[in-house]
Amino acid sequence: MFDFRRTYDCRTLNKLHIGEKVTLSGWVNKRRDHGGLIFIDLRDRFGLTQLVFDPKLSLSIHEKASEIRNEWVISIHGKVIPRAEGMVNPKLSTGEIEVQVEELEILSKALTPPFSICDSTIDVNEETRLKYRYLDIRRGDVSSKLVMRHKLMLAVRNFMDSQNFLEITTPILCKSTPEGARDYLVASRVYPGNFYALPQSPQIFKQLLMISGMDRYFQIAQCFRDEDLRADRQPEFTQIDIEMSFNTPEGLFEICENLMQHIFQTCLGIDIGAPFPHMSHKEALEKYGTDKPDVRFDMPLVRLDDIVQKSTFSVLLEELKNEGVVKALCVKNGAEISRKQIEEYESVVGKFGIKGLAWMKKSPEGFTSSIVKFFSEDLLKEIENRMNVENNDLILIAAGPQDRVNQGLDHLRRHIARQRNLIKENVFEFLWVMDFPMFTIDKETNDITAEHHPFTSPNFEDMHLLDKDPLKVRALAYDLVLNGYELASGSQRIHDSALQAKIFKLLKFSDEDLKAKFGFFIDALKYGTPPHLGCALGLDRIVMILTKTENIRDVIAFPKTQKASDVMLQAPSPATSQQLKELKLKAEPEKIAWP
Amino acid sequence: MFDFRRTYDCRTLNKLHIGEKVTLSGWVNKRRDHGGLIFIDLRDRFGLTQLVFDPKLSLSIHEKASEIRNEWVISIHGKVIPRAEGMVNPKLSTGEIEVQVEELEILSKALTPPFSICDSTIDVNEETRLKYRYLDIRRGDVSSKLVMRHKLMLAVRNFMDSQNFLEITTPILCKSTPEGARDYLVASRVYPGNFYALPQSPQIFKQLLMISGMDRYFQIAQCFRDEDLRADRQPEFTQIDIEMSFNTPEGLFEICENLMQHIFQTCLGIDIGAPFPHMSHKEALEKYGTDKPDVRFDMPLVRLDDIVQKSTFSVLLEELKNEGVVKALCVKNGAEISRKQIEEYESVVGKFGIKGLAWMKKSPEGFTSSIVKFFSEDLLKEIENRMNVENNDLILIAAGPQDRVNQGLDHLRRHIARQRNLIKENVFEFLWVMDFPMFTIDKETNDITAEHHPFTSPNFEDMHLLDKDPLKVRALAYDLVLNGYELASGSQRIHDSALQAKIFKLLKFSDEDLKAKFGFFIDALKYGTPPHLGCALGLDRIVMILTKTENIRDVIAFPKTQKASDVMLQAPSPATSQQLKELKLKAEPEKIAWP
Repeated sequence: MFDFRRTYDCRTLNKLHIGEKVTLSGWVNKRRDHGGLIFIDLRDRFGLTQLVFDPKLSLSIHEKASEIRNEWVISIHGKVIPRAEGMVNPKLSTGEIEVQVEELEILSKALTPPFSICDSTIDVNEETRLKYRYLDIRRGDVSSKLVMRHKLMLAVRNFMDSQNFLEITTPILCKSTPEGARDYLVASRVYPGNFYALPQSPQIFKQLLMISGMDRYFQIAQCFRDEDLRADRQPEFTQIDIEMSFNTPEGLFEICENLMQHIFQTCLGIDIGAPFPHMSHKEALEKYGTDKPDVRFDMPLVRLDDIVQKSTFSVLLEELKNEGVVKALCVKNGAEISRKQIEEYESVVGKFGIKGLAWMKKSPEGFTSSIVKFFSEDLLKEIENRMNVENNDLILIAAGPQDRVNQGLDHLRRHIARQRNLIKENVFEFLWVMDFPMFTIDKETNDITAEHHPFTSPNFEDMHLLDKDPLKVRALAYDLVLNGYELASGSQRIHDSALQAKIFKLLKFSDEDLKAKFGFFIDALKYGTPPHLGCALGLDRIVMILTKTENIRDVIAFPKTQKASDVMLQAPSPATSQQLKELKLKAEPEKIAWP
Repeated sequence: MFDFRRTYDCRTLNKLHIGEKVTLSGWVNKRRDHGGLIFIDLRDRFGLTQLVFDPKLSLSIHEKASEIRNEWVISIHGKVIPRAEGMVNPKLSTGEIEVQVEELEILSKALTPPFSICDSTIDVNEETRLKYRYLDIRRGDVSSKLVMRHKLMLAVRNFMDSQNFLEITTPILCKSTPEGARDYLVASRVYPGNFYALPQSPQIFKQLLMISGMDRYFQIAQCFRDEDLRADRQPEFTQIDIEMSFNTPEGLFEICENLMQHIFQTCLGIDIGAPFPHMSHKEALEKYGTDKPDVRFDMPLVRLDDIVQKSTFSVLLEELKNEGVVKALCVKNGAEISRKQIEEYESVVGKFGIKGLAWMKKSPEGFTSSIVKFFSEDLLKEIENRMNVENNDLILIAAGPQDRVNQGLDHLRRHIARQRNLIKENVFEFLWVMDFPMFTIDKETNDITAEHHPFTSPNFEDMHLLDKDPLKVRALAYDLVLNGYELASGSQRIHDSALQAKIFKLLKFSDEDLKAKFGFFIDALKYGTPPHLGCALGLDRIVMILTKTENIRDVIAFPKTQKASDVMLQAPSPATSQQLKELKLKAEPEKIAWP
């Protein structure tokens, strides 16, 4: 039998190996016939090596080689020789040599693939890529991201281990506790008609592990959420889950900062520096309109309520009267921006319910625009000072309900930054956003809900407000933000069962519901619970940042579509009648049209 | 606020720290009042430290300490002092010192636990342990096993990384392919009435990754099986999943052997030696009656068919006539074994359908027993030689259908070995069992089924038998056996789509079924598939062996009961009507009586 165990992979050989007999195995990336000689670029996960088939050496092997097509799997024995003068390829690690083939085995033929493998610059429709994921990965773009994902996971594990954290695997077959997103349900056969739920996070388990005295826990955990998917979400996602006892947010911040430093050092060789700056939730919203500000560039939102109040600008005054706000952005050197461009900006904020933008440009002669007339010289001076307006700057003003103005200007700010190339490359601006509110009002139901989750501890200083004015209570919750993405979210947990019960009550859990869903957990808190806290970092997002992609499906080996289906496996699929009978379920499967 | 961040954990302090001011936090393991002084053993995951409260130092703190009960969570500031003469506890790493408490904070009170935490020797009913798992873990026995599990997982990952294997996470939401055990089904909301399945193993995905060119893959993977549970099974279990391209079983054996060496070195500091011996499946069954022989002790099964044939022992002759076999064990120095004891042995083999045991004892005067008369002197001599019978040995003879005799004597052999302490402690006898048959006959359906799984390659030498005599075809499959446990199972895979289709046909898959379940996979094989092979190691079993437990629930943080329920979470549970409506499912939940 032909011995196809390679002696080298396809990235290694160079002129130091000249004269050596080698075995290489891999895929035919490309074949070229050149005046008698046949050249094949042999490919594996690691790289490319050029093979040469010389009819003078063996006519039969040369003939066999001439039948070979792209993507066939072959193995060869041969001799490393230098490339002919002028044929050295400096872009390839093996570009100085080629391998003269002495024996050839065709291990596996291949149909013509539905898209080109060797030319990964050709754009392929994503559905086709997913259907033939095994070929898509072969193109190299996804595979290099999977390599990075592996590196990252290992770096996380070794770092957490060095800090005395234990990785503890928690169950996938859990209990449905419908308080966050929608659960995926798994049918029980032993207890027909009952269901397990897939975990949205190991939250309850990690807190139980603290009650168990495990002290420092982490896990790279698969989590599940049955939601209609936004472009950057997947029904299964991965988080780096961390929990620790007898510590404070400062202690956790340090661990997370060191972890991130270790990750960036190991994966990219970059020193990101630490500690990370802190910003209150309130300041983030005020200054950037979002709780995950991208601070790689400036251009803050500036509030102009008081100045507008003294103006005669009736449109804006009207918004203020309706409890709205007025905020503005200053675009440096934006005076050249056309009216048409500003109309496009209006459509950006328009998506968030902002009806228009007022604008002014600064020239050496002062502000120009049709709205200047509504402001006195003093007021214009005040705007200029507050917003640090210089010559050739453009200011854009939005008015309306606070959350709409914030959302609109946040998006506009980032839109302009991308458009005007204000974002520095390879810059990683981390930020802890602190002092989130404990509760918020669900706009659909008008109920009070937990901003973070119901296990978050209120800020100890705000305990007295819990009954009087719960919406004013700050949580001991914090987010880690990087370049405008929420990378981690965490909190100090409640470790007192009475306080936990009270929070559930504030969240309008009925006694019955509470007992059924969290009764055991409130009981567990009564048996000696240490102060504990933790966070969860989005692993998929970190890989996306490390590999510079905006597509979450690029960093997952076998992702789902936005309809949560797997077009390669053709899943989900109907159950057999035998399966349904055993589960005592009735189902009428909707027919799925697979691509 | 009291600063409860500890300066040391409870295992560290010794007389080098005397005089130092420290902060300790943890659980009250035990409190003792001794003539004015109060002693508290403070416990954390790491160890115990003795605290002393002296009323002369502070009456108020002493008073507070007198209220403390077991399992309360406290934090103290204090000074390390030497223990009084004669009070040193050499069993404790902190036994030379105690900490004189200067400040005390009660962080959390505790109800009296349902079982003792500080005395883990007290036996607790397993259902109660599982219901209060968070307290059970606190008792230390489980927690030390979870620490070992963490160590093991990290050792595996670092070793596999060092061998260029990439950890690639494969999906949990998969497709039901009911060919092995029963799948767990997850209801789809987007496509109502359709289901995902939880993976029984990542088999298809790891083979697709080889087709993708990922070359070397591994994963510590959660797997799921909806089966009625044997004592050592769990519905969710973990395997170390490995796959590689362009290699042979010998190459994989070496990697697995080095992996096991690394594991035992890292986790136990033991050098297990390598390479591991090989044994054919046929020899294992013949000599040990099982495909996972425990070779830590001798006592092989010896076939006596030919000798019995020449005897006048009609009972055994009858069995031979019915295509049965006669096999025997020799128990060294077993002559003292009583008839009553032999009756117990008969009940062991009786469970496998063997009606009784014939026996003979060897004394200097020759064999004794009521069956000696059936054998001539020559035949007795032949038995003596074949079985290496010495004075004072006992031989036990079983007859019947081959698989029953094998099963019965395998169990009896191990039963006797345990009973007579023939098994050496801390000995790890690894063994590769090779040349499994490709197919077997399912006794219930009488159909031909895959012994390993349908992706296993037939032995290349036996290809010609596939059509003629498939039951004679050997598979390129191998198991790694340790001390009588199957630790890993693997095979060379089929990398030719035509052969794969043929095997599915032999296994009586209909074209339609095949297309629906594995169509995409057979297609994938057509696009250039490298020769590949792999295996899966049972991680839970390895932890059990490393931590010397026979109970799989000891090595899983939150295990399920044998009815696949979680008595702590009370899962599974009924879905809400809203959930069922969204999934378009009808279910009538069976009521579950929770403990």
